[in-house]
Amino acid sequence: MTADFTTLAEFRALLAAAPTTDQKAQGEAEDRNGQLTKPPGALGRLEDLAIWYAGWRGTGRPEIAAPQVVVFAGNHGVTAQGVSAFPAEVTVQMVANFQLGGAAINQLAKAAGATMQAVPLDLETPTADFTQAAAMTEVEVVAALAAGWNAVDEASDLLVVGEMGIGNTTSAAAIANALYGGSAEDWVGRGTGVDDAGLAIKARVVGAGVALHGAPKGLEALRTLGGRELAGMAGAIARARNLRIPVIMDGFICTSAAATLENEVAGALEHVVAGHVSAEAAHGAVLARLGKEPMLSLGMRLGEGSGAAVAINILKSAVACHSGMATFAEAGVSDG
Amino acid sequence: MTADFTTLAEFRALLAAAPTTDQKAQGEAEDRNGQLTKPPGALGRLEDLAIWYAGWRGTGRPEIAAPQVVVFAGNHGVTAQGVSAFPAEVTVQMVANFQLGGAAINQLAKAAGATMQAVPLDLETPTADFTQAAAMTEVEVVAALAAGWNAVDEASDLLVVGEMGIGNTTSAAAIANALYGGSAEDWVGRGTGVDDAGLAIKARVVGAGVALHGAPKGLEALRTLGGRELAGMAGAIARARNLRIPVIMDGFICTSAAATLENEVAGALEHVVAGHVSAEAAHGAVLARLGKEPMLSLGMRLGEGSGAAVAINILKSAVACHSGMATFAEAGVSDG
Repeated sequence: MTADFTTLAEFRALLAAAPTTDQKAQGEAEDRNGQLTKPPGALGRLEDLAIWYAGWRGTGRPEIAAPQVVVFAGNHGVTAQGVSAFPAEVTVQMVANFQLGGAAINQLAKAAGATMQAVPLDLETPTADFTQAAAMTEVEVVAALAAGWNAVDEASDLLVVGEMGIGNTTSAAAIANALYGGSAEDWVGRGTGVDDAGLAIKARVVGAGVALHGAPKGLEALRTLGGRELAGMAGAIARARNLRIPVIMDGFICTSAAATLENEVAGALEHVVAGHVSAEAAHGAVLARLGKEPMLSLGMRLGEGSGAAVAINILKSAVACHSGMATFAEAGVSDG
Repeated sequence: MTADFTTLAEFRALLAAAPTTDQKAQGEAEDRNGQLTKPPGALGRLEDLAIWYAGWRGTGRPEIAAPQVVVFAGNHGVTAQGVSAFPAEVTVQMVANFQLGGAAINQLAKAAGATMQAVPLDLETPTADFTQAAAMTEVEVVAALAAGWNAVDEASDLLVVGEMGIGNTTSAAAIANALYGGSAEDWVGRGTGVDDAGLAIKARVVGAGVALHGAPKGLEALRTLGGRELAGMAGAIARARNLRIPVIMDGFICTSAAATLENEVAGALEHVVAGHVSAEAAHGAVLARLGKEPMLSLGMRLGEGSGAAVAINILKSAVACHSGMATFAEAGVSDG
């Protein structure tokens, strides 16, 4: 399979030309919501989520029957700087764990009734250390975007993207710092569990990378500071938009990857909700920049799409209420 | 079926003699949690929930296969004071809606793989207006506690209790005010949607009831200011403890009913977690008094057990990770 683009410029053009929500279906969902057997607004956020989902799916009474979870994996040259508590070989070990069904995301996808696939991206070839050079060439980032684009099942009706990549909170912090400014210290966190010394290294590395590449924006931030799995997630999110498949974002790394799309083309994440806010300190700050309110706040910081996968069942619950409840007229209930 | 008590004193004795968590199973779960293929603590609250659940179920590697949702319904004499935006006949209409599967809780229970039953409690006989007399006699409150006690399926492995009862946020506010002090205004909210004038009426009614009954505590607060559906929930929560079945609490009314148990016998809610914090303003304050951190904050304020039912899938996700994940040794992953 080949993707629908071969350059960053072509990918950008697809982003800019992406479809928007179906206003008619969204209006029908709003009307239906007002007739259901509950006080107005009593289902809170579930009502907003169901109406949002209905608009993207183009029907006032949708269902979620085929959620898809895709976990992209990549290796990072910047691990040579000592930014992670785990060795780089854990990335490939965890991909094997995904494939054998033993990781958290396997259990969470199953609990959400979702398919789950792991997509390793050239694990034997880490990206360049971004303190020395651009993490990826254009050819490399386009290949990773295309892998993400091609991983989305056209028959899915909900997408979760996640990641595995030792060192990738450093990459995410560098992207956030490049996009939003401030100091490196504002954006680095403990990731899988670095100590104070490790945190100081991460800040130095992030600062050096952002300075070397001149605080790049949009897809250029993804290319120079990102990683293959971040580009895979970005490509999948873009393809989901193209197919009107709503997306639940995961944690800091996923959100930073997604942020490069929004930074490149405003509105690129209208089909995306935030599944959770992670314990990685800067995640909430990136969500706030994107105007995304997380569905969950459970202190999770695993990645793999895990927080978003937990949120699948919340969105399913919202849509089940919306499409399955009786109206006041159907149930013969007095409406106040 | 008869319950195991016929007086409040006998019910209290059962509360005081209730089993505690299985420390050995909890310890086994903690050990297992430390070996799973994730950085320590990376699943956040999910880890705590799984370990807590394991302790109550008496096994270090539990599963959730049979969750039960029970919705109790009752009518309130205090509705004569004009405390609700909906007429009292909505209670019986909604019970019919529950039985026909058209309510929000029906969809949410189904989405959580839970059974769902509605238990109407003497709807034709509202409790007394608590501004004039005790809401229930001892015989009445014991009957409602027994109905709750008997509604719990011994084969369940998780319980959610919910309620329907026009006027019952007023009852819940009166209980909270009696238990925790402060002014009536601290505890009343808009319920299904009263306006400012309705809110002022609720505050006056709550203040009058609490004063008339002398700020009663524990089960006496439940009897004098509560309602049959609140007592049903309390009885079911107590029975679940007796059977070591963990419970997810719902919103303000459920939590206020549960609080009478904790207020009567400290520790009575150790087998209970808070499913969500509702938009009803005082709910968060009651949760804080009970030391219960909500799993969700989605602005819901429907009752029916709806918020707790959404949370079932979170607990299932937590337990699925705990019991289904591979250990570092099993997966051959380097553990940092």
